[in-house]
Amino acid sequence: MDISNLGPTLVLGGARSGKSTFAEKLVEATGSPMHYLATGRAFDEEMQERIALHQATRQGKGWTTHEEPLDLVGLLRRIDEPGRAVLIDCLTLWVTNLMMEERDMAAEFAALAAFLPEARSRLVFVSNEVGLGIVPENRMARDFRDHAGRLHQIVAEKSAEVYFVAAGLPLKMKG
Amino acid sequence: MDISNLGPTLVLGGARSGKSTFAEKLVEATGSPMHYLATGRAFDEEMQERIALHQATRQGKGWTTHEEPLDLVGLLRRIDEPGRAVLIDCLTLWVTNLMMEERDMAAEFAALAAFLPEARSRLVFVSNEVGLGIVPENRMARDFRDHAGRLHQIVAEKSAEVYFVAAGLPLKMKG
Amino acid sequence: MDISNLGPTLVLGGARSGKSTFAEKLVEATGSPMHYLATGRAFDEEMQERIALHQATRQGKGWTTHEEPLDLVGLLRRIDEPGRAVLIDCLTLWVTNLMMEERDMAAEFAALAAFLPEARSRLVFVSNEVGLGIVPENRMARDFRDHAGRLHQIVAEKSAEVYFVAAGLPLKMKG
Repeated sequence: MDISNLGPTLVLGGARSGKSTFAEKLVEATGSPMHYLATGRAFDEEMQERIALHQATRQGKGWTTHEEPLDLVGLLRRIDEPGRAVLIDCLTLWVTNLMMEERDMAAEFAALAAFLPEARSRLVFVSNEVGLGIVPENRMARDFRDHAGRLHQIVAEKSAEVYFVAAGLPLKMKG
Repeated sequence: MDISNLGPTLVLGGARSGKSTFAEKLVEATGSPMHYLATGRAFDEEMQERIALHQATRQGKGWTTHEEPLDLVGLLRRIDEPGRAVLIDCLTLWVTNLMMEERDMAAEFAALAAFLPEARSRLVFVSNEVGLGIVPENRMARDFRDHAGRLHQIVAEKSAEVYFVAAGLPLKMKG
Repeated sequence: MDISNLGPTLVLGGARSGKSTFAEKLVEATGSPMHYLATGRAFDEEMQERIALHQATRQGKGWTTHEEPLDLVGLLRRIDEPGRAVLIDCLTLWVTNLMMEERDMAAEFAALAAFLPEARSRLVFVSNEVGLGIVPENRMARDFRDHAGRLHQIVAEKSAEVYFVAAGLPLKMKG
């Protein structure tokens, strides 16, 4: 797989759909030095342990892990290098973190959109599709799915490949 | 795109999936006089303003806008004319309005199903897929997604083309 | 359709997506003796009547109905026979029943996974995709969609064919 000069890959899927595993395989297949950018934050000890376990597993396979809940674009710029592959897991947690910090979502999304065509590393984004259920009664949840949906459209538009994953199976939507 | 003699088009998608934008592009590509049938009702001033803004944008591109929360089939019959394209946005808001007025859903859906094969204009329906989350605890929400699911099956069966849109990307399910 | 030597079929879809009707047609097209394995439990009279009605309809078309809320693998083994077709409707209700009885989910899923490659009958599984909405606030609902997602990955991996059904239309994900 050579996606270096084409643009990023976006892997969308539901909860426990196998989207992260599929994205990891995509990156491992590149044969490039692999960087993992985790946007999630551990809120308790159990989650810290789980994250540490995943990190150890990836480390054994040669991944370098970065953690960045908010400044996604800044970190992507800092580690951007030709021949590298970077897996971002996941966009929806980034959206959650930005909302909790009351950031300007449109500005953050625009900054990411501006970076994508300049990126020299191979970027693979993972994100949760969350807009296919009933309209949530909770206002925050409605805003969240609106932001996530907008971000997916933005990243998909700049991506060379977009996959929708269900039951561990990828469906190519673009590319 | 010539869908005039084949039957309607159904565009399904989640919240902020880009389904309406995709449907508008489909209609604009026909080169036909364009009619927009809005089924939504403005419940407050903010929503009225947003609707007015969208309407002004469409008007500048040559669209004629109609608003009809309940008598969808009646309005479709009144504006039905060969060579015209009609975008109906959206079926799920129509279902919501029918439920709030306690209409006979089966009868309403049957009336639409009966009209579709007779329609002379090019019809493009937009609707929200809402059945792919957890079963809602709220009875009304469960009924809503049952009605929406049944209506989607009815319209899809009579349609020439069905698309599923995610992240702004259309996936052809039929046609 | 000859899926006898290839492995099971998994039919995923949302609420009222037409997934069960599609799965029934798949089984009826095999021309094999047809067995229906219902995992749902009737909790009230209305549901009992609805189930009895469906059963009578299937019986008229030559189906034999079995009801088993928990011991899915045991029943599948008992009725397993070359040349037979078995429709399991549905996996998500089985997951619900297992959770209510506090069974060891991983052990149950492993037992099903072990049986699938040995099955001599043609198996068609129906299941609800429930992971594409907002993260549920309810812990039990979150666990449920995690279990369902894991089970879908397991069954899909062992399946010859996987379909995603929306608006009554099947989309082939595998096979």
